[in-house]
Amino acid sequence: MLVAGPWIALLTDFGNESIYVGILKGVLSTIAPHAALIDLSHEVPPGDVRAGAHMLWQATPYFPPNTVFVSVVDPGVGTSRKAVAASWGERMCVGPDNGIFSYLEIRDGTPAVVELISPEHRLDAVSDTFQGRDIFAPAAAHLASGISLDDLGPSAVLSEHLPAPRLEALDDGAVGGELLHEDSFGNMISSIGLLQPSGAGMHLEPWLNQAPSAELATGDIVLRLSNGQELPLRQTFGEVEPGEPLAYVGSSGLVEIGVNLGRASQDLSLESGQHVTLVGRG
Amino acid sequence: MLVAGPWIALLTDFGNESIYVGILKGVLSTIAPHAALIDLSHEVPPGDVRAGAHMLWQATPYFPPNTVFVSVVDPGVGTSRKAVAASWGERMCVGPDNGIFSYLEIRDGTPAVVELISPEHRLDAVSDTFQGRDIFAPAAAHLASGISLDDLGPSAVLSEHLPAPRLEALDDGAVGGELLHEDSFGNMISSIGLLQPSGAGMHLEPWLNQAPSAELATGDIVLRLSNGQELPLRQTFGEVEPGEPLAYVGSSGLVEIGVNLGRASQDLSLESGQHVTLVGRG
Amino acid sequence: MLVAGPWIALLTDFGNESIYVGILKGVLSTIAPHAALIDLSHEVPPGDVRAGAHMLWQATPYFPPNTVFVSVVDPGVGTSRKAVAASWGERMCVGPDNGIFSYLEIRDGTPAVVELISPEHRLDAVSDTFQGRDIFAPAAAHLASGISLDDLGPSAVLSEHLPAPRLEALDDGAVGGELLHEDSFGNMISSIGLLQPSGAGMHLEPWLNQAPSAELATGDIVLRLSNGQELPLRQTFGEVEPGEPLAYVGSSGLVEIGVNLGRASQDLSLESGQHVTLVGRG
Repeated sequence: MLVAGPWIALLTDFGNESIYVGILKGVLSTIAPHAALIDLSHEVPPGDVRAGAHMLWQATPYFPPNTVFVSVVDPGVGTSRKAVAASWGERMCVGPDNGIFSYLEIRDGTPAVVELISPEHRLDAVSDTFQGRDIFAPAAAHLASGISLDDLGPSAVLSEHLPAPRLEALDDGAVGGELLHEDSFGNMISSIGLLQPSGAGMHLEPWLNQAPSAELATGDIVLRLSNGQELPLRQTFGEVEPGEPLAYVGSSGLVEIGVNLGRASQDLSLESGQHVTLVGRG
Repeated sequence: MLVAGPWIALLTDFGNESIYVGILKGVLSTIAPHAALIDLSHEVPPGDVRAGAHMLWQATPYFPPNTVFVSVVDPGVGTSRKAVAASWGERMCVGPDNGIFSYLEIRDGTPAVVELISPEHRLDAVSDTFQGRDIFAPAAAHLASGISLDDLGPSAVLSEHLPAPRLEALDDGAVGGELLHEDSFGNMISSIGLLQPSGAGMHLEPWLNQAPSAELATGDIVLRLSNGQELPLRQTFGEVEPGEPLAYVGSSGLVEIGVNLGRASQDLSLESGQHVTLVGRG
Repeated sequence: MLVAGPWIALLTDFGNESIYVGILKGVLSTIAPHAALIDLSHEVPPGDVRAGAHMLWQATPYFPPNTVFVSVVDPGVGTSRKAVAASWGERMCVGPDNGIFSYLEIRDGTPAVVELISPEHRLDAVSDTFQGRDIFAPAAAHLASGISLDDLGPSAVLSEHLPAPRLEALDDGAVGGELLHEDSFGNMISSIGLLQPSGAGMHLEPWLNQAPSAELATGDIVLRLSNGQELPLRQTFGEVEPGEPLAYVGSSGLVEIGVNLGRASQDLSLESGQHVTLVGRG
């Protein structure tokens, strides 16, 4: 196989209708003309660092190793928050130091980090409102073009960290977690996963390093919401009637809540942060 | 000219805001690093196999021959419907066996088909909910990388077929058809086309193999809706007043219904399946 | 560095959900298989030539020099308006002759222009409704593939020009301008810019060739709306309370109006064309 790549993947809250995404790509193409550009999503809910952090966690395993992720969910643009690049070996991310790399840190360990202050690796004029264009895209493009992380600025540490999602093995064999965020279909993703069939029941695998490993008895497994409602754990939406809610193991290995042909977040009045409990009725 | 391509074109109902499209592209880039990825559309109405089939019919002629189309409009994901790859020579498609290739079959003939069950050409773990990532994208990427169709699984036949759109030459020289679907501007596309000027009037060319060829007298040609309303056939929207409806030959060669500066589907209460008749008043 | 590019950037009002964008890319890839395609935006407000012209002005400086811009904001498609290609050296644009290149002309000078009538550089059949596919994409792809501008048709001049945005130095040291258009966040972009700190106050740089250069005294600088309301000029949104309006120098160097965590266009009932005045209170 020929050498291929590098890739630059873009995750922002600019919105798909925004010309600012196109301008980012112009800057990236000018500095890294051989990089392939991939849109991860530009519809992170505006300023929602937690949703962005989860999307990075979810998507990164599916990309070529030599991908640089540009992550511009940056409600603090123009304030004193640092602009950083973080490296886990070949996989690298640039973005604000506001917690957006938190779930990558929990799963993949502490990255090497530099603060992006090298004047020759920014655009000539840095605006207060569009540092994606002026700082983050140039840094990502230089990294994709092969410069060393250390050329972008002095070594640093990430100073902002999102709280780890609540996830705990309970005394009665149940597992406690919380709702993380809503996907584009209105399904609500929880902090509980991965579930694998085991001899006696379901085995809960850790999805983040600090998550518990546990066994749930077979038989009905239900997800109990904070209001007491219990949803059956099923494999596919088609196993419940249209309009009926269910829990299922989503494509990232986390337990999610859906409504067949509906929007669970609205239909069940779900919000991120609400507690949920996975209970086996062995 | 240098050898170029291959291309992989993506047609899904995931929505442009979805991170799942980005994840598909990560998988495609990992397995087929030299393929160029093109978004055909990610806004097929959710689960609307017929709209997806029409879009494939509409778009495929404009792509390079060595393009693989990933078509994930898949309301039956997780059920027993087959996952398939279909080949019309260099042009290949992967997707569910749910009728989405029906219009290609009618126009381009019966493809060679295999069922996608080769374990080494899927991701290691296949989820029930995201087979675009786990089955279809890997298959498309392997095809774009040059493996043979037969390597992906055993030979198969497509078992689901959409009904051919209604289209018939009527006794009085008129042509009967039906409304197919709405485009993103609210225009409604019918099954009647292609129209070409001929000596005496308009000549109706078949757009699908089984469609009739017919002649319409010159003079006013009108499209009669199922409620009796008649719309004039015009060349451009500007030939009717703002807010007024018209019929015109759309960019795919099919007769469409529009409203100048309006949305025909809403303004005229149009729905797919409604009968329409093209009538010449020679 | 290896030779890279060319690039083709796409600006349309087709909407992100439209399959027509995908079809454009199929045509571009077929004719120019080695070009990299970049979406600038497909959410220009429908038919809004002025917004499209401003977006081209805003984005072009950030792209590689050998980029061809396909600009299809074309409310007059199917009428007698000319289809043209315009060249400012390596940077080239194709699109309708309807004023969409006006701001590029004011900033970058008069381009070389040809009318796109060469039959061998169009698709075989040219529709009345989709000339992006049939005329503009083929022309852009041929240009990106290295043919000469003159091969596409006879020399021409642009016949449609948008009025230059209102911008004038007033007697009392203030600067008069107007609102141009709304961005995707609801911020309203004015014709006044660029502002640079100078010795005594703020120095107003011309952003278009005919714009005045002026000095504003230091101290409070405010933007006065046509209804008399005065907005403070600030560096970042965070300097005003949530829900409060401000003026700031946007990422293109123009003074913009925003509302912290709001949509200025709605919250302040702003419309394009309204007069604004930048006043220094030295």
